[in-house]
Amino acid sequence: MTSTIRLTQTVQKGGCAAKVAALELRKILQQVKFPPAPKDLLIGTATFDDAAVYRVSDELAMVQTLDFFTPIVDTPKLFGKIAATNALSDVYAMGGQPKTAMAIFAFPLATMDPSVAVEVLQGACETIEESKAALVGGHTIDDDTMKFGLSVTGYVHPQRVWSNAGARVGDILILTKPLGTGTLTAALKRGECTEAQIQDGLESMCTLNDVVTTLKSDSVPAIHAATDITGFGLAGHAFNMCKASEVSFAFTPESIPRFERSLELISKGFLTKAHRTNAEYVRDQIHIGAISTELQQLLYDPQTSGGLLLAVDPAQADVVLDQLLPRFRFAQKVGKVEAPSSKFLKF
Amino acid sequence: MTSTIRLTQTVQKGGCAAKVAALELRKILQQVKFPPAPKDLLIGTATFDDAAVYRVSDELAMVQTLDFFTPIVDTPKLFGKIAATNALSDVYAMGGQPKTAMAIFAFPLATMDPSVAVEVLQGACETIEESKAALVGGHTIDDDTMKFGLSVTGYVHPQRVWSNAGARVGDILILTKPLGTGTLTAALKRGECTEAQIQDGLESMCTLNDVVTTLKSDSVPAIHAATDITGFGLAGHAFNMCKASEVSFAFTPESIPRFERSLELISKGFLTKAHRTNAEYVRDQIHIGAISTELQQLLYDPQTSGGLLLAVDPAQADVVLDQLLPRFRFAQKVGKVEAPSSKFLKF
Repeated sequence: MTSTIRLTQTVQKGGCAAKVAALELRKILQQVKFPPAPKDLLIGTATFDDAAVYRVSDELAMVQTLDFFTPIVDTPKLFGKIAATNALSDVYAMGGQPKTAMAIFAFPLATMDPSVAVEVLQGACETIEESKAALVGGHTIDDDTMKFGLSVTGYVHPQRVWSNAGARVGDILILTKPLGTGTLTAALKRGECTEAQIQDGLESMCTLNDVVTTLKSDSVPAIHAATDITGFGLAGHAFNMCKASEVSFAFTPESIPRFERSLELISKGFLTKAHRTNAEYVRDQIHIGAISTELQQLLYDPQTSGGLLLAVDPAQADVVLDQLLPRFRFAQKVGKVEAPSSKFLKF
Repeated sequence: MTSTIRLTQTVQKGGCAAKVAALELRKILQQVKFPPAPKDLLIGTATFDDAAVYRVSDELAMVQTLDFFTPIVDTPKLFGKIAATNALSDVYAMGGQPKTAMAIFAFPLATMDPSVAVEVLQGACETIEESKAALVGGHTIDDDTMKFGLSVTGYVHPQRVWSNAGARVGDILILTKPLGTGTLTAALKRGECTEAQIQDGLESMCTLNDVVTTLKSDSVPAIHAATDITGFGLAGHAFNMCKASEVSFAFTPESIPRFERSLELISKGFLTKAHRTNAEYVRDQIHIGAISTELQQLLYDPQTSGGLLLAVDPAQADVVLDQLLPRFRFAQKVGKVEAPSSKFLKF
């Protein structure tokens, strides 16, 4: 079954760029009286982590996350794969392995052929199978625009959780994937390029952030903290990690990996609302050195299915990077963790 | 913080009536090649159950479900409570106790005041706290119309799961809540009545289907099977249970509990698309006796946060009903389980 529909033309905002902006969200959440967290909730919302961690026993904790968004590519099956990869990533970002997934599916029955839904689900199934998790259910709703994603539960040992709060002064920062999916997919949506022309970005968004099984097991403890880079961009997610760890990050901007066309498309103006709101989110906490305005925008580029930012024991950073490269061929050392300073982030 | 917005006026379709119809959904799912189910998946999609059950150990299984929908009432906090109660219900329907919940929130930032989001979340938090589960995270998206719901994980002992497949010939059917939320909320949306005038329905939608802790512990094993009645209506969900259990259900239509105004509002024509699609779903499998057309429509009425339909050991059905009544004051015996026959359902 093939489909000639261009999914990106059916929505206003694509992917993680459609997230509610960090500042707006925080303002809402601050006004809600949340019940006290139970003792088994090892990681909740306080550390801005990618997923919650809930202790089942002394040997086992559940990592739980959910994520869904509107199409950012035109091909339905590819969209399903990207949405699934993106949702699974939050489990990997906590050091977990995904076990179960449930589909979150809003589908415009009145305007879209059901074969499109079949292809989206098929793409997601292939990615879930690759992750060795099981698709165990889901919920569909008739809606004006398509949204798809997953609620994922993974397992992790309670003593081996990669929290945002674990980065240590001296750690080396490694980013597993290039930046630029926000500008690439904005350009795709507006017809500036085809899917074939941003193949590096599409491949990256379909690559599972499964760092734990990519590394040799004795290298895994070298990872002190991790977060996955999604809608709030590298700067926003790095900021959350700094705050939780009470450290600052000094990046080497020239070493930050990017897709081939990222800077060109930014310079042509393919930006999203999230570029602005992400910049606002970190405005008071960032020091920007002598880097181009395009590279600055890239720091705020909202990533969909972006890489993991890892804080790695400096003595093992080169070994870790070598082990990552077969799967993550653009992974790079991008900076280091420093003592707290007046600004959380230096670029 | 108060809000004068009428949420039902901001959406086209409300609540579980916005589900993709059962037949359309099945057609889509039949074309997807799903990966093989892992051995730890005790209950997946094959039995049309309300939630998946995944074995963690010999003593513990996770019950997982997710549900979300558009507003069906006008008051934001009430909507949050109903959406949370509805999502938690699927865990109760498997005999489980909810442990963690994640929010699924689509919010129209451009057209709605953020205070509405605060109130929806506050309502959900109160219900989650009442259930003794923890809100551990979630995902928000900027969308044209509001949608809210939860992804919930509960615990159940692997040997004490209430599957749809457990109903036995001779069991008595008990329904914990009245029918009619579909027509009540359709009338509310169209201004035929106020929230105050359908108070019995609103209270019911906010009542947690926590049958396990409502019963004395030695009565719990009398429940052989359970399902919660939601978007596909009593007939649709009963049909799924019959198929899974390979039995038929003989209802006593006059004993089926309903809200005070359910039949009046149906007779006035407050119906949804789901009334038709739910009827189509069971058309070949239902025998309808001499009952009014209004009562027939009630069987197809899409429920939001509806009751549990329980298949109960006949020797203990009266005891179970007595123990349920303090919480579920309209619970009733509504029929019995019979051997398979040419039609799955008799009303």
